[in-house]
Amino acid sequence: MPPGTPSGASFGIDDLPVRDELRGKSPYGAPQLDVPVRLNTNENPYPLPEPLVERIAERVREAARRLNRYPDRDAVELRSELAAYLTKTGGHVVGVENVWAANGSNEVIQQLLQTFAGPGRTAIGFEPSYSMHALIARGTGTGWISGPREADFTIDRAAAVAAVTEHAPHVVFVTTPNNPTGNAVPAGTVLALYEAAQAARAATGGAMVVVDEAYVEFSHGQSLLPLLEGRPNLVVSRTMSKAFGAAGLRLGYLAAHPAVVDAVQLVRLPYHLSAVTQATALAALEHTDTLLGYVEQLKTERDRLVGELRALGFEVTESDANFVQFGRFDGAQGSHEAWRRILDRGVLVRDNGVPGWLRVTAGTPAENDAFLDAVRELPRDVPRESPTTVGATPAPPKEQNT
Amino acid sequence: MPPGTPSGASFGIDDLPVRDELRGKSPYGAPQLDVPVRLNTNENPYPLPEPLVERIAERVREAARRLNRYPDRDAVELRSELAAYLTKTGGHVVGVENVWAANGSNEVIQQLLQTFAGPGRTAIGFEPSYSMHALIARGTGTGWISGPREADFTIDRAAAVAAVTEHAPHVVFVTTPNNPTGNAVPAGTVLALYEAAQAARAATGGAMVVVDEAYVEFSHGQSLLPLLEGRPNLVVSRTMSKAFGAAGLRLGYLAAHPAVVDAVQLVRLPYHLSAVTQATALAALEHTDTLLGYVEQLKTERDRLVGELRALGFEVTESDANFVQFGRFDGAQGSHEAWRRILDRGVLVRDNGVPGWLRVTAGTPAENDAFLDAVRELPRDVPRESPTTVGATPAPPKEQNT
Repeated sequence: MPPGTPSGASFGIDDLPVRDELRGKSPYGAPQLDVPVRLNTNENPYPLPEPLVERIAERVREAARRLNRYPDRDAVELRSELAAYLTKTGGHVVGVENVWAANGSNEVIQQLLQTFAGPGRTAIGFEPSYSMHALIARGTGTGWISGPREADFTIDRAAAVAAVTEHAPHVVFVTTPNNPTGNAVPAGTVLALYEAAQAARAATGGAMVVVDEAYVEFSHGQSLLPLLEGRPNLVVSRTMSKAFGAAGLRLGYLAAHPAVVDAVQLVRLPYHLSAVTQATALAALEHTDTLLGYVEQLKTERDRLVGELRALGFEVTESDANFVQFGRFDGAQGSHEAWRRILDRGVLVRDNGVPGWLRVTAGTPAENDAFLDAVRELPRDVPRESPTTVGATPAPPKEQNT
Repeated sequence: MPPGTPSGASFGIDDLPVRDELRGKSPYGAPQLDVPVRLNTNENPYPLPEPLVERIAERVREAARRLNRYPDRDAVELRSELAAYLTKTGGHVVGVENVWAANGSNEVIQQLLQTFAGPGRTAIGFEPSYSMHALIARGTGTGWISGPREADFTIDRAAAVAAVTEHAPHVVFVTTPNNPTGNAVPAGTVLALYEAAQAARAATGGAMVVVDEAYVEFSHGQSLLPLLEGRPNLVVSRTMSKAFGAAGLRLGYLAAHPAVVDAVQLVRLPYHLSAVTQATALAALEHTDTLLGYVEQLKTERDRLVGELRALGFEVTESDANFVQFGRFDGAQGSHEAWRRILDRGVLVRDNGVPGWLRVTAGTPAENDAFLDAVRELPRDVPRESPTTVGATPAPPKEQNT
């Protein structure tokens, strides 16, 4: 019996005075299974190049010599380098005063919701989308509104604007490229949502619009960073988890008006970003060109996956990300059965709870071949639904999708 | 003009739709001044030993080779080693299932408040104490109750129990040794508060009691970990910032009943703890004996500071921490003036907003000598208050104290 257990009792979460909305819940997260080919969490399949590994060791060694001191609370050097990266690649001049960084884009989003949403306020997302938006809303006491998405997973501009106008949310999330569907949102839609959100809350200072660009480096199109010009209520969030091949680093960041950067510092935990995280991220930013070379390879592989899946007769959602959504299987049961059959062949993809669809991360060419070999067998095994029989909006995902 | 600034306008935080309670606020944190002797944030003055620095570089190098993958979401190896450390030093057997870790004890506290407090619920602390408890309560929408402390900074058991009984808070914080005052809280007081907290909320599953032991390794006494036995609503929080000399690492942790560890996972951000943080912490835990040797030196220096300050005629609060609270100066103005005079001599101490008192971190012998030299001049410069003229309970601190 573990220490602290009341003797003779089986004591669990629901015996503790947890908040009511947490009762009966389970922690969120993808199943972590030990299989040969893991294409389920949109990780970059390429390990960091060895010169970068050595540079990380070197910068962390230097940081470790000062580890008895608190880290730079404002992460000025790191934010400067992130700003330089955005300026170089994003089509918009960004300075250190426009950038904020935290432990993963999840913490960035949490800080934004603590600052601009929270108890008595609401946020909207167009689902299915990155399910952590809704979960972090719950964790910060923010009311969550599930906005509409079409059956083909695009956002209908008029319907989305109508939802924003009706609900007048304090925060609007737009994920582009979207996760788990892969498709990008046109700039015009984001602009229309921005205008609608400001109008709906004009009496109380407007609303914040958060454009989640976690996967934008993999896009056929451009970043929406230039939209920041003249729009102080717009935020673009980013991550080093995907394009920088550094999911293990947990480094998320945002670009916005300097007032937004000032505002999130009202809620950030002081010294939230460790000296080793800052040192490792700075090392990775020195190797941007190499890492973006891997991104180009992954884009090619992603496009190959789309083409080959379509050639096999699957429906595939347009993808601007490092993953591909494919289907359609016969509802939730069909997609889960397909997920299991692919897993039987040693390949782990993601069942995000979007009925009839699965998501596969673009891996190395060999990993993608293994995946394609596995799905070649599927049409015989698992029933698929005719495109003409499905019209309903898909249900929001039930599982956190990384 | 920074990009994104509406032309011609001076646009600031209050022009954004921030939450009402954040309006007019400033980010919290100690002034970070560049002075020869920094004794203001309770950092450990001893850099990590070079063999540990090398071991950190080695473990981070290994972690960097897998950095494209998400970190172990449950940090099992790290939690096991933290449990072994607590078992070895804390007088109580602790297993991996009893331990949870996060980015600093601030994030541990945030997760606890999100799980057990939050909107519509309350937490109490006995002030002056670690001011982040109140700030994180605000950030999580938790109502804050300022509990009583005596003029000599001890907690009067009956008065504290009465406050808990009256307010029936969902979470009770007890910081021992207390920051910024330095004194420890007797186990009997914690037990009385635990019983009172359970009784006050008996109808709704009791209340959580969080014992913040950030400084306990510096104590003349023992950890309160053994109190966990049979008390599933008790949590002991710890940090590697102080005794492990790793403020830059941001590694906080807790020990509690396994159900508490399960419960905080309902609100933790997935993959919150980076692979480099986990690797660095594991390296430091391999060098526990060396680091605890530094702790013994700091305890000796802390006791020397107490003795010498008293010999100089100062009042000094009993200290079980790596810092010393001393006074009394003539109210808030007097302590601020003394702070400034000490700073003029190149030594930065902490003005925590406790009127008439300052806090000095125990540094190296040379740093402490520099501090003592600086304060030797004070009695001639700055008026002090007679002990007999002060009876009022001190005001809560206005500034975050690390």
